[in-house]
Amino acid sequence: MDIEEFRKRGYEAVDRICKYYKELDNHNVLPNVRPGYLKELLPKEAPEEPESFDAIQLDIETKIIPGVTHWQSPNFFAFYPANSSFPGILGDMYSDMFGCVGFNWITSPVCTELETIVLDWVGKLIGLDKTFLSDGYGGGVIQGTASEATLVALIAARQRVIDKYKAEGLTEEQLYEISNRLIAYGSTQTHSCLKKATMIANVRFRALSTDEKFSLRGNTIKCEIEKDISQGLIPCFLNGTIGTTSSAAVDHISELADAIQGTDVWLHIDAAYAGSALVCPEYQHYLDGVDRADSFNFNMHKWLLTNFDTSCLWVKRRKLLISALTITPEFLKNPASESGLVLDYRDWQLPLGRRFRSLKIWFVLRTYGAKGLREHIRKVYSQYIITYLK
Amino acid sequence: MDIEEFRKRGYEAVDRICKYYKELDNHNVLPNVRPGYLKELLPKEAPEEPESFDAIQLDIETKIIPGVTHWQSPNFFAFYPANSSFPGILGDMYSDMFGCVGFNWITSPVCTELETIVLDWVGKLIGLDKTFLSDGYGGGVIQGTASEATLVALIAARQRVIDKYKAEGLTEEQLYEISNRLIAYGSTQTHSCLKKATMIANVRFRALSTDEKFSLRGNTIKCEIEKDISQGLIPCFLNGTIGTTSSAAVDHISELADAIQGTDVWLHIDAAYAGSALVCPEYQHYLDGVDRADSFNFNMHKWLLTNFDTSCLWVKRRKLLISALTITPEFLKNPASESGLVLDYRDWQLPLGRRFRSLKIWFVLRTYGAKGLREHIRKVYSQYIITYLK
Repeated sequence: MDIEEFRKRGYEAVDRICKYYKELDNHNVLPNVRPGYLKELLPKEAPEEPESFDAIQLDIETKIIPGVTHWQSPNFFAFYPANSSFPGILGDMYSDMFGCVGFNWITSPVCTELETIVLDWVGKLIGLDKTFLSDGYGGGVIQGTASEATLVALIAARQRVIDKYKAEGLTEEQLYEISNRLIAYGSTQTHSCLKKATMIANVRFRALSTDEKFSLRGNTIKCEIEKDISQGLIPCFLNGTIGTTSSAAVDHISELADAIQGTDVWLHIDAAYAGSALVCPEYQHYLDGVDRADSFNFNMHKWLLTNFDTSCLWVKRRKLLISALTITPEFLKNPASESGLVLDYRDWQLPLGRRFRSLKIWFVLRTYGAKGLREHIRKVYSQYIITYLK
Repeated sequence: MDIEEFRKRGYEAVDRICKYYKELDNHNVLPNVRPGYLKELLPKEAPEEPESFDAIQLDIETKIIPGVTHWQSPNFFAFYPANSSFPGILGDMYSDMFGCVGFNWITSPVCTELETIVLDWVGKLIGLDKTFLSDGYGGGVIQGTASEATLVALIAARQRVIDKYKAEGLTEEQLYEISNRLIAYGSTQTHSCLKKATMIANVRFRALSTDEKFSLRGNTIKCEIEKDISQGLIPCFLNGTIGTTSSAAVDHISELADAIQGTDVWLHIDAAYAGSALVCPEYQHYLDGVDRADSFNFNMHKWLLTNFDTSCLWVKRRKLLISALTITPEFLKNPASESGLVLDYRDWQLPLGRRFRSLKIWFVLRTYGAKGLREHIRKVYSQYIITYLK
């Protein structure tokens, strides 16, 4: 495919996207296909000879679209509003143009710097305490999903405890024994990604009961921590939620912060779903106590017009994240990293590679403006599609 | 932004991509910017009012492009050939059109089914043993990066050992003690993502020395395993590499498979970089012994014309992956999953959410054909850009 054919096919793709959103109301949300339907329609092997793009486009219509669940439909009410938007799609197109992999500052300085800047913008917009911003010891990073954000925070929490015991002179074997006794807490309403994170990190986990409004209360966690410490466990991580996926419950963050005071417990706030609403000042009271948390996460790809995958994580002490996730083989060393003047986001996440995702956040923030995002949140969900995507 | 404005801006984005690849030779690969350059150019806060897309496009030219490291340039020789392609970009555009999140089969059946099919296609194309394909007990899945693929394989390996001891009747406390003694191996040439995976999973790790050709040999690992077992450790994971990032070294896979026979060690093959070359039959002898491995991974986003992130992982027993990574809260239950007739890829990966990435693989395989991909590999790298992207 040469440049001129790409231009033609690119225009056609743009037209197809326009047609898709024009007709979206007409589709049933759920497709009517049986398991294995596609296997009967496609060849068993990749083609030996190149095929024309006409054939691919035809297959999109006849074989792909019949098997799509239409998440962007105004009639989709499962899970959460998985808001995409046109500026978000454009952001991905420009990102794909560069095809750069910004794991270190030097591997594409703008990829790192724009991310730091827009995460500061979003942090300010949702009223996050300034200690989470990049000016001081904190900062934000884009993770693919809240699952990754939670796991990353848990790894940092574990490392903080291990480093404390290391500083006390414990041997490597003793540190392994310590890591065995670590325990993380959430509530029965906490998203399943926390349990999965603890399985991956091999940390114990307990789901605590909530009050009648599905909120985790300070007393519950305080008693649990005391009991566990007396039994030789080492509490290291507490997940407080602002708007769980299952019940939209909000924990009493400020009580949780009180309850863990003086312990080694890392307080992580999962606002994956409802965090978007914090762009409106009338919801920012839910942040009460978050200034005492160690990390905070919400998903712009849920309810804030930015296509998946855009999970924003802020930490109060970026040093703790970095020290838990840094590996520097010979081929990643470079003068910029060694100068200490730059951030290398590979040390803030699980994988090494990363896409240029801040572009779509930047496009969305500028195209809608803070005002537009607030209006979006204040509308009824079904209204939003009609207004923004039509 | 309404549909008609998106159409205009979408065409403009396509034109900009064409211009970018036309002029790519003229850019220096490395940008000439100081750390912090962008902060001086952008406002401190998100705009209150919506801005015009003209302003955003202008900023792309004047503020973003000056800070890009041009990975797609024919003069980029760092790390690995991070091949993007026009069909790949189009694949992402169609994926963004749907904006679907295919974590379960029902959340977009085609997203799961196309992935299974194209991973079978690619598996056959690179000569992978048929036990890795979805027809039997195996199957392929798209991970974001080789870092994630390695971690996922390590988690499955750990779970297999833990389940074995569980079946022997060990208590939970004893299982924690067992998990403490697990150890994973690679060579001094193994990609740093293995060490990072062991840090995340909290599994011990040792890098073993290689022969004069930087290959890990069977005897080395055999001795190490025996020594470690005699000291009470439990070897559980061995990473064999086909083409390391640092030195392109190839381990003696067949020797490694011999060496771990009769042990609980999971053999994972990391062919992240060089695996693309296996589309050519003349390189498939490097697969000797891989039929005895438990998992195999290579990155189509390195050297196989598919834009980042497309890391392909195959496992011989998908059940082992699933049992290590499954969590099913109430809101993810559905009849299709319970029927046992479908795959739910959320159980094959770290996060819950996932994009529709198989589209770009499908577009690339069909646009180039197996023949075109072989030709691509056989060309000198600098030649490829001139031929395919110009």
